[in-house]
Amino acid sequence: MAAAGFSCSAADLNPLLGANSTAAAEYICSGFDAVASKFVDTGYAIDNTYLLFSAYLVFAMQLGFAMLCAGSVRVKNTMNIMLTNVLDAAAGGVFYYLFGFAFAFGAPSNGFIGKHFFALHEYPTASFDYGYFLYQWAFAIAAAGITSGSIAERTQFVSYLIYSSFLTGFVYPIVSHWFWSADGWASPAGSDLLFGSGVIDFAGSGVVHMVGGIAGFWGAFIEGPRMGRFDHAGRAVSMRGHSGALVVLGTFMLWFGWYGFNPGSFLNILKAYGESGSYYGQWSAIGRTAVTTTLAGSTAALTTLFGKRLLSGHWNLTDVCNGLLGGFAAITSGCSVVEPWAAIICGFVAAWVLIGFNKLAEKLKFDDPLEAAQLHGGCGAWGILFTGLFATKAYVNEVYPGQPDRPYGLFMGGGGKLFAAQIIQILAIVGWVSVTMGTLFYLLHKLKLLRLSQEEEMAGLDVTSHGGVAYEYTNGYAAEVENQKNRFEMKSPAAF
Amino acid sequence: MAAAGFSCSAADLNPLLGANSTAAAEYICSGFDAVASKFVDTGYAIDNTYLLFSAYLVFAMQLGFAMLCAGSVRVKNTMNIMLTNVLDAAAGGVFYYLFGFAFAFGAPSNGFIGKHFFALHEYPTASFDYGYFLYQWAFAIAAAGITSGSIAERTQFVSYLIYSSFLTGFVYPIVSHWFWSADGWASPAGSDLLFGSGVIDFAGSGVVHMVGGIAGFWGAFIEGPRMGRFDHAGRAVSMRGHSGALVVLGTFMLWFGWYGFNPGSFLNILKAYGESGSYYGQWSAIGRTAVTTTLAGSTAALTTLFGKRLLSGHWNLTDVCNGLLGGFAAITSGCSVVEPWAAIICGFVAAWVLIGFNKLAEKLKFDDPLEAAQLHGGCGAWGILFTGLFATKAYVNEVYPGQPDRPYGLFMGGGGKLFAAQIIQILAIVGWVSVTMGTLFYLLHKLKLLRLSQEEEMAGLDVTSHGGVAYEYTNGYAAEVENQKNRFEMKSPAAF
Amino acid sequence: MAAAGFSCSAADLNPLLGANSTAAAEYICSGFDAVASKFVDTGYAIDNTYLLFSAYLVFAMQLGFAMLCAGSVRVKNTMNIMLTNVLDAAAGGVFYYLFGFAFAFGAPSNGFIGKHFFALHEYPTASFDYGYFLYQWAFAIAAAGITSGSIAERTQFVSYLIYSSFLTGFVYPIVSHWFWSADGWASPAGSDLLFGSGVIDFAGSGVVHMVGGIAGFWGAFIEGPRMGRFDHAGRAVSMRGHSGALVVLGTFMLWFGWYGFNPGSFLNILKAYGESGSYYGQWSAIGRTAVTTTLAGSTAALTTLFGKRLLSGHWNLTDVCNGLLGGFAAITSGCSVVEPWAAIICGFVAAWVLIGFNKLAEKLKFDDPLEAAQLHGGCGAWGILFTGLFATKAYVNEVYPGQPDRPYGLFMGGGGKLFAAQIIQILAIVGWVSVTMGTLFYLLHKLKLLRLSQEEEMAGLDVTSHGGVAYEYTNGYAAEVENQKNRFEMKSPAAF
Repeated sequence: MAAAGFSCSAADLNPLLGANSTAAAEYICSGFDAVASKFVDTGYAIDNTYLLFSAYLVFAMQLGFAMLCAGSVRVKNTMNIMLTNVLDAAAGGVFYYLFGFAFAFGAPSNGFIGKHFFALHEYPTASFDYGYFLYQWAFAIAAAGITSGSIAERTQFVSYLIYSSFLTGFVYPIVSHWFWSADGWASPAGSDLLFGSGVIDFAGSGVVHMVGGIAGFWGAFIEGPRMGRFDHAGRAVSMRGHSGALVVLGTFMLWFGWYGFNPGSFLNILKAYGESGSYYGQWSAIGRTAVTTTLAGSTAALTTLFGKRLLSGHWNLTDVCNGLLGGFAAITSGCSVVEPWAAIICGFVAAWVLIGFNKLAEKLKFDDPLEAAQLHGGCGAWGILFTGLFATKAYVNEVYPGQPDRPYGLFMGGGGKLFAAQIIQILAIVGWVSVTMGTLFYLLHKLKLLRLSQEEEMAGLDVTSHGGVAYEYTNGYAAEVENQKNRFEMKSPAAF
Repeated sequence: MAAAGFSCSAADLNPLLGANSTAAAEYICSGFDAVASKFVDTGYAIDNTYLLFSAYLVFAMQLGFAMLCAGSVRVKNTMNIMLTNVLDAAAGGVFYYLFGFAFAFGAPSNGFIGKHFFALHEYPTASFDYGYFLYQWAFAIAAAGITSGSIAERTQFVSYLIYSSFLTGFVYPIVSHWFWSADGWASPAGSDLLFGSGVIDFAGSGVVHMVGGIAGFWGAFIEGPRMGRFDHAGRAVSMRGHSGALVVLGTFMLWFGWYGFNPGSFLNILKAYGESGSYYGQWSAIGRTAVTTTLAGSTAALTTLFGKRLLSGHWNLTDVCNGLLGGFAAITSGCSVVEPWAAIICGFVAAWVLIGFNKLAEKLKFDDPLEAAQLHGGCGAWGILFTGLFATKAYVNEVYPGQPDRPYGLFMGGGGKLFAAQIIQILAIVGWVSVTMGTLFYLLHKLKLLRLSQEEEMAGLDVTSHGGVAYEYTNGYAAEVENQKNRFEMKSPAAF
Repeated sequence: MAAAGFSCSAADLNPLLGANSTAAAEYICSGFDAVASKFVDTGYAIDNTYLLFSAYLVFAMQLGFAMLCAGSVRVKNTMNIMLTNVLDAAAGGVFYYLFGFAFAFGAPSNGFIGKHFFALHEYPTASFDYGYFLYQWAFAIAAAGITSGSIAERTQFVSYLIYSSFLTGFVYPIVSHWFWSADGWASPAGSDLLFGSGVIDFAGSGVVHMVGGIAGFWGAFIEGPRMGRFDHAGRAVSMRGHSGALVVLGTFMLWFGWYGFNPGSFLNILKAYGESGSYYGQWSAIGRTAVTTTLAGSTAALTTLFGKRLLSGHWNLTDVCNGLLGGFAAITSGCSVVEPWAAIICGFVAAWVLIGFNKLAEKLKFDDPLEAAQLHGGCGAWGILFTGLFATKAYVNEVYPGQPDRPYGLFMGGGGKLFAAQIIQILAIVGWVSVTMGTLFYLLHKLKLLRLSQEEEMAGLDVTSHGGVAYEYTNGYAAEVENQKNRFEMKSPAAF
């Protein structure tokens, strides 16, 4: 036990045994104490390895969002939307450090908002380490990314700067406090639980996806559809994104990152369920969560493939990607507490929820270039309900321990209390985000800061606000040689 | 040891020592038992962390395949090939869950096929956890991805749906059962080993790469080359892919993911070799496997660079990428049991194997847009032989323990038995995949479901089957302003 | 303790206690010894898991560089620059295995250069395992990637082959030996420290970034600016890269990989600080390092956003990406030993350093297509100084233990010795890289091997050296059908 500061010496122990049982007992126990301490170190090392790499995967989703968004808009707004994705991460880093994390997880606190750890003051503590901050930051920036998709292609850049700071720094942290901080009024971990249950939103179908989606809904609703999106007869005109390759790249990166998002939300992996020494523990639940996530997304993708084929006659790649993401957004709430077969149901329904909300949006002349409000808002809400229906008794008690007789899924025989709590979550999020973000977007609208002018929208944001277009594919090719020669002759080159 | 349910108290132990040695002994031993249990938990936590993140990396290869394939086809078939890559993962998820995993690893079973764990029934067990399922799923979807490259740009989408389900759900699982399940007839882990050796295909040069490559060979052979690929004099006409950037992106993602594929195939990392407490253990073997993988790919890339420069006069990027991947496909079989210097030989030969098979393919008017049959089939087969030649005694016994005097590489003095077993593997895979997939492709061909019509092939799959082209680069630029104005005036904008 | 080769049996221990205290003591101690050994195994498993996945992340930066470089050059040189990035990794793999690693970390050695472990001979040892080699290889290839950006778009491919081998195989390993090998003359870990301090360049603002940047400076300076980069009045003419999407993709991948680069440089995670059993240990320092990295990059991005907006009137995405990377390059030196708030200062200044050096470069008609010399050289140098100013006492002693009263940051009350050592590092790197790489580039220049001819530069490297252009977007679309028909009929295919 040199590594743990204890080295057992038979020569030392021998004379103690028999002769001096007090010293012998202390000697032996000091060995066990050192072992216990070493296990503490080992646990922190394993759990932080697990949490940090999960955080890196969640961060990789930001790359996924950037590529998905870029591919889904028209070429003239590519630089704009990618800049918002870079800034979500960067501004999010600074704001979440300064106050967002404090609002969300500052402890002790009241049920509504946290109030410690501003700028990571008096940090880390026995319960909160830097890895946890990093993990939560990576979640916070995801919400803002969702919203920027909804209002893409027609929003002033200054508006983006304002609403995204407000969302990442205040609106989202409050919601995460309610449902994820042990002090939150709807947390499943406190002592006085909502309906004796608390809300189970394991990785954030509500906290992240609905928040981003509802915020996006208000933005898109208030500023109205893009020019030309609906013709004068009111029929929808398709406005395809400019790059299918970027859409697929983004979708796969999001899938990859979701393995940090959902299984990572356990936060630690070294935890026995029941007695120590069994093959079944939190590591199994984490693996199962990765499996339910995979199955829900996969099923939603297949359902969309065949569903859209029936409806439109095409095997549509972009729709399949969106369906897949809808399945992920839905399973995110219950991924840790449902059986794999239930995840298939979750994904199947999620696909139709998305198709339905897209139909509805078209009917109502609602224009969301990324389908973000429908996908993250709609499928996210379905996921919250799904958890209230399919959460199993065993898994709920393993993942949220220490609360005997806690309610579980209605269809699994666990009564309606969890389902009721889940409905409360949906109402609370819709209410809070509508009041805060809806008001903000309305103010921006009234101040003429929200929507671009017609000229700017036609020309595209890249040219009007960001100094130039995203691609220059023409130079370098045949014509370019000519082109450069001309420039060359006229200007005469720099001396070198 | 609070964490492990045991807390050593000198006050409790003291009176027992001397006075009641039975109780003292039980007290002390209960401490050691608790420590042992805690080590069990710790081991599961570490090994699952290792396995799960390896699985995520293997999954990232699907993104790599998608980008590599997209970049390697002409622009008119981009959406089609990317859709197959998304569906490989999604359909693979559902089918592998329902029955593929059961065929492959269901235990106990016979030597040919597994028969438990359908839909993960009675799962997990002491030997199989969810992380293992996820890891094997990520492998299964890779095989289908290889095949879709071979038959790209001329195959009906409905054919893809049929063969890929059959491949991922049945053909591949059977092969993985043979070589990787302890019950498989050619497994290196059972009790009655083929030639006293069993086949060593550590991460699947045969099980994954040859299966995908041979399946692709039959598909591409039966439907024939793309229109215009060979002129009427029979000379090959180059058909470049549409994006070098996507090819490089895909290649790097595959390289990145291969660190999950090869080193991850150890499945666990906390395992001492020989006595506990030494610096050398499975963690070293895992690191060495990452190094052999890197060296084989790197050498193959450099060999291809200079080889093709001599042959063609260019420093060809796409060829270098394919050479690199050929080196990886070859080392995949023996990566864990050969020395780093041998990996350089492996990569050097792999590069020439690929160049040779490509020459042969051109001679035989065989057209594989991704060179997948040549690369995964040819270099994969070379890799299997390479293992039979260069596997070292020490490593073979560390990685496949419990079998004294097991054969190893022919050139390393280990006799010809391992080499013979490796040849059997090649024959078995070629036979099985030819019978199953060859027959299937022939049936599809006869049913007129395999190949596109000439008109469709000329127009491209994206327009004919998938609802539109992959890119829209023109709008948003100078001309677009005009364009939109016109549309605007004609149509008059939507009211908002 | 079956897993550790010890099983405590009360039946066996009972008769020993009291009757035979020698045997009892040995029995008990053999139990503790087995536990100690098992902890050794466990530590290796955890630390190698941590190190290997960190290495994979650092490798992913190569993909980031490739995409960033590709997007930042004109379309006609895309294949060229991506090929250099692939070859950095591949040639780096072979050279670093053969001798680079030996020069850098071969031990025992002198202060200037290592001299063991050529081709991993007599490897691994108790101190060096394969994971460490892989991690260091991933670092080595990064330096070469930086340099290729500086001299992009006008350099002969053969020059690249020569200088990159020399840089990865010799110049860089020597520098890493000086500062990172325990034997290095400026190491912070040896016994006879420079100024009683040694240089603190934790993850390589100097060792990696300045080396790459200074090398790039000499290459770009000696061959002069690209044709047309400055007009005859000496005014800079903007030469935008061809793809903003690739720039953002590359930037995000670099950000992702930086979590392997900086926090990974701890090399192991299971290490208590002070007493065992506390919540605060190396795992916390690792998390904090991820946070300081995030904050420095984020602040630099925001500073650049607003700074460039003031200067140019645009919200410029490419500048924000470069600013972000400048913040990362700067924090890389001190990431582990400064407070999060100091990281914000680091990033803020880094943004202005980059803006300043870019202005200066324009003034001096220095042309670096990637701003690599300014970014990695300039911000890297700032980062080295920053560490000398802001390193805290507590963190310096935790991260570099065993040296009481070691100097720390000047502004933190730690005196000027560390700062002096940091200045020595800058001078040493500038001197060494200038002498070696400056000379090499000058020789290549004199031998007419460095710069392309005017015709080649105009036509672009992809066509002249690499066999064709990067993209073919036109075929496959409407017009293409016609086009192909014609080609088919008229041309009769190319002979080759």
